[in-house]
Formats: sequence, structure tokens, C-alpha cells
Amino acid sequence: MNRGAFALMAGATTQNLSVVTTENRNARGPFLVVCEHASNHFPAAFGTLGLSAEARKAHIAWDPGALNLARGLATALDAPLVAAGISRLVYDLNRPPHAPGAMAARSEVFDVPGNAALTAAERRDRTERIYLPFHAALHAEIARRLAMGRPPVLVTVHSFTPVYFGKPRAVELGIIHDADPAFARAVHAEAEARTGLTCRLNEPYDASDGVTHTLRLHATPYGLAHVMLEIRNDLLADEEAAAAMAAGLAPVLSAAQARLSTPSDRKAAV
Amino acid sequence: MNRGAFALMAGATTQNLSVVTTENRNARGPFLVVCEHASNHFPAAFGTLGLSAEARKAHIAWDPGALNLARGLATALDAPLVAAGISRLVYDLNRPPHAPGAMAARSEVFDVPGNAALTAAERRDRTERIYLPFHAALHAEIARRLAMGRPPVLVTVHSFTPVYFGKPRAVELGIIHDADPAFARAVHAEAEARTGLTCRLNEPYDASDGVTHTLRLHATPYGLAHVMLEIRNDLLADEEAAAAMAAGLAPVLSAAQARLSTPSDRKAAV
Repeated sequence: MNRGAFALMAGATTQNLSVVTTENRNARGPFLVVCEHASNHFPAAFGTLGLSAEARKAHIAWDPGALNLARGLATALDAPLVAAGISRLVYDLNRPPHAPGAMAARSEVFDVPGNAALTAAERRDRTERIYLPFHAALHAEIARRLAMGRPPVLVTVHSFTPVYFGKPRAVELGIIHDADPAFARAVHAEAEARTGLTCRLNEPYDASDGVTHTLRLHATPYGLAHVMLEIRNDLLADEEAAAAMAAGLAPVLSAAQARLSTPSDRKAAV
Repeated sequence: MNRGAFALMAGATTQNLSVVTTENRNARGPFLVVCEHASNHFPAAFGTLGLSAEARKAHIAWDPGALNLARGLATALDAPLVAAGISRLVYDLNRPPHAPGAMAARSEVFDVPGNAALTAAERRDRTERIYLPFHAALHAEIARRLAMGRPPVLVTVHSFTPVYFGKPRAVELGIIHDADPAFARAVHAEAEARTGLTCRLNEPYDASDGVTHTLRLHATPYGLAHVMLEIRNDLLADEEAAAAMAAGLAPVLSAAQARLSTPSDRKAAV
């Protein structure tokens, strides 16, 4: 797969933007997988924001490897996958429209010239053309499962850079939650038991850093079990590595979900 | 105005359903008014659910007087109004799709035969045709204001029956909040000071009864100041009464919003 182009197979489009694609829509498993930072595509409508080709391939533009992992998990778990088709620098779908980081003028050590002086009308335009259709598509997948009595466990899949502001990060698998920690704690326990990864709860950042917007919008209001997975991107360097990670993490998620389904833990998850 | 028909002026339609209308869309005030139970319209697509004409006019089918009050508030506050055009018995837009009350088989002392044996497919169909477009329209109004740096104060407008299961209710104005109580408390203080109404915080019910779904979906994830107003419907018996109530409550909301805008109270609202 050409990651850069992120060819859409059955994607919804809005004014010729490939905003969101839903795969395995009729999957029957208990999970719903989300990948907000799947793509480093810069649609012609917004240009390249003054970024070099190098910057547009860097972790500031997307979460490298996250889509391959998300697809592997969706296949292994018989889950639908809702994935974005546009760079997070055009609109970061895991941020609300009034957050500076939704259309960041600077990300880590990179300036984003095309976001430096956005007008209110431009922010509104990107919100209407990217943020709203993506979250409407995700909302629809969740709502129809709720209506049919099958509340999904929401899993958002991200990757992070091994070196941030020049500092190496030791954590390999970050497990992050919004308001309800029950499912993330179960995932952490199963990941410690079943993988050799260095696992941390709520690292390299947590909900207070504003990184759980998707969970806050879609999981917490419905009381859905949820987790945000953050994998260090050197562990997802190619398709084989991502496939191996998916094969390792799918049983972790299933075992954590089974824990929640036992009477003693179900209470903690309510 | 013909309340029963709830003629739409500029409404979005989905498969010929008049699900939602947005009025005063370009209003410039700080509030956004929502009326989920504005109408007792039963679209032909779903029939009359086996209800008598009397039951379809009762409080179980809608919140009598709420739309007149909501319109009066929206005008007085220069606010947009997002209002539903379908009876809450077809889909109660203030309930999530997996709540029994979303398509209630019984409401107070009334059976709703057409909701008694809904299949999963029927629940999904109503969710897709009513719940999703209503909340997408509301989400769009909120998101575009956030993008432009004008986070709205969310005010949902409801009415309740003076006699419930045979028991009279003394409260006249209920002021209900979701997670953040700051704005509701300010509204309560101003209502006590500025009106002669019997006012109660979180009566005749509160968030733990599941009545704050709209606020939980749209206000809480964005940290928006919010309140759900519940007015006893004998105080909204005709257009004149509703207009008088709007004239009385608009200054209450404005004064409460001004309180939140002072530095000492702003902290409590974050």
C-alpha cells in the first residue's frame, strides 16, 4: 500500500476531499477501530501549507505505521475501521475546532507556514469540510451499533515519534483513557502479561493534554469502553512490523474485553 | 402557529422526514438554543404508533409550549435555534439509541403500541433517519462557532407536566446541568433574584436520570457552559404565556452568562 497516497477504497468524499473511509463496515466483532492520523495526504484544495517534502513525510503530518496497525487489528478483531484520509496538519481530527492544535501553526520543531495566519473563515471552512464529515461518519457507525444493542468498544490507534524535542522516549506502548479507566487498565494488565513491550498507562501523554478528543466525543457520552493506543513508530517501520504488532495486540484487546464482560469487572466499567 | 403541524421554514429533510430546522442561523449572540421535543408531528413513514389523537397531543408526545418559549428566547438573545420536527415517541432526541426511552414502549400512563416490539433493524432505521441528522445539524452549528472562536452557551428548552403519575409538581422552573454545574448555578441564582418562579436546581430530575444526553453529547466534550431549562407546561399554555416567560428568562440567561464572563467565576467554569 502506498501510505502517502492512502488510496480510498470506499471513502466518503466532501467537495472532492477524501476525508474519511470506513472499512469492514458490517463486521460483527465487539470493537470499533479508529485511526485519525492515518494519512499524510495534503489535498490540493489546501496546498502543502508551505511545508517541505521532508516535513510532509515526518511524524508531524501523520502517525507513521498507524494505519497498517489499525487495519491489522480491524481484520484480526472482525471490527470496522474508520480512518481519515487527510494530514493532521490540515486538520487534526483528534482536536476540537477551537484548539490551536486543530490547525497547528507549529508542531514540535517545524513551523507550518500555511497555518500561521488562518482567518476565522478559513478555520470554519476546514472544520466544515474535514472535522464534521469525519466525526459524522464515526458517529453513524457508533449510533447504528447502539441502536442494534451492540455497543462497541472504541479503540483509537496512534503512533508517536521515538525522539521528541531531541529527547528519546523509552515507552513503547502507551495506553490512554478518557473519563473511564476500566478498559485501559485491563489492556495494560493484558499487555504486560502477553507482550514484551514496555507498556505505560497514560504515557507519553494523557487526557489532560487534550489528546482524547475523539474518545470524549464518541465514547464517554455513551459510556462506551474505550482505549487510545500509542505505539512508538520505530516499532511500525514497515508493513511486516505493523502486522506483527497487530498479531500481538489483538489478543490483548480481546482478553481485556473478556475481563470487562465478567461480572466483577463489569461493575467497575459502568 | 400550528403547533401540531410544526411547519418547517428552512428545515433539513432526510428521506422526506422533517427532522430538524435551524432558525436564526447567523445570529451573533453568545447562546445557542435547542428544542428536542418541539413537535408532536408523527411522519407518515412511521404511522401514529397506535396512539389515539388524545395521546398524540399529550405531554408524552412532545413538550407543549417549549418551542414557543425557545423561539422567544432565541429572538431575545439573538441566538440560533435548533429544533426537532418529530414527536419524541418516534425518537426521543434527548436519549441515546440504546436507551429504552429513545423509542419508548410506555410513557407515564400511556402504552405506545407501535414501539412495543421494534426489531433491531427498526431501531437502527429510526436512529439513522432521525437521531443522526438532528445531532449532526446541532454539531455543525456548534463546531462552526468553535472554529470562529465563539464557543456558544448551550441552552436546551423543555417543558414538563404539572401532574405526573397523579402527583402534582410544585417546581415551576427546573434548572439542570450535566458535568459542569457553573452556568446552571448562575442561572438558578439569577432566576431566584429576577423572577417570581419556584426555581429548583436539578429538579424535577437530574443528569443521573439520563435526561442530559444532548448536553453530554454537545456541551460537555467541548467544555461549553450549558443548562437545561424545564418549565412546567401550565405556565406555557398559549403563545402569550410563552412570550411572557421568554421575556422573563432571557435577562436571567444573559445575567448568568455575564457572571461566567467575570474572572472569578470563569475559573469555576473551566
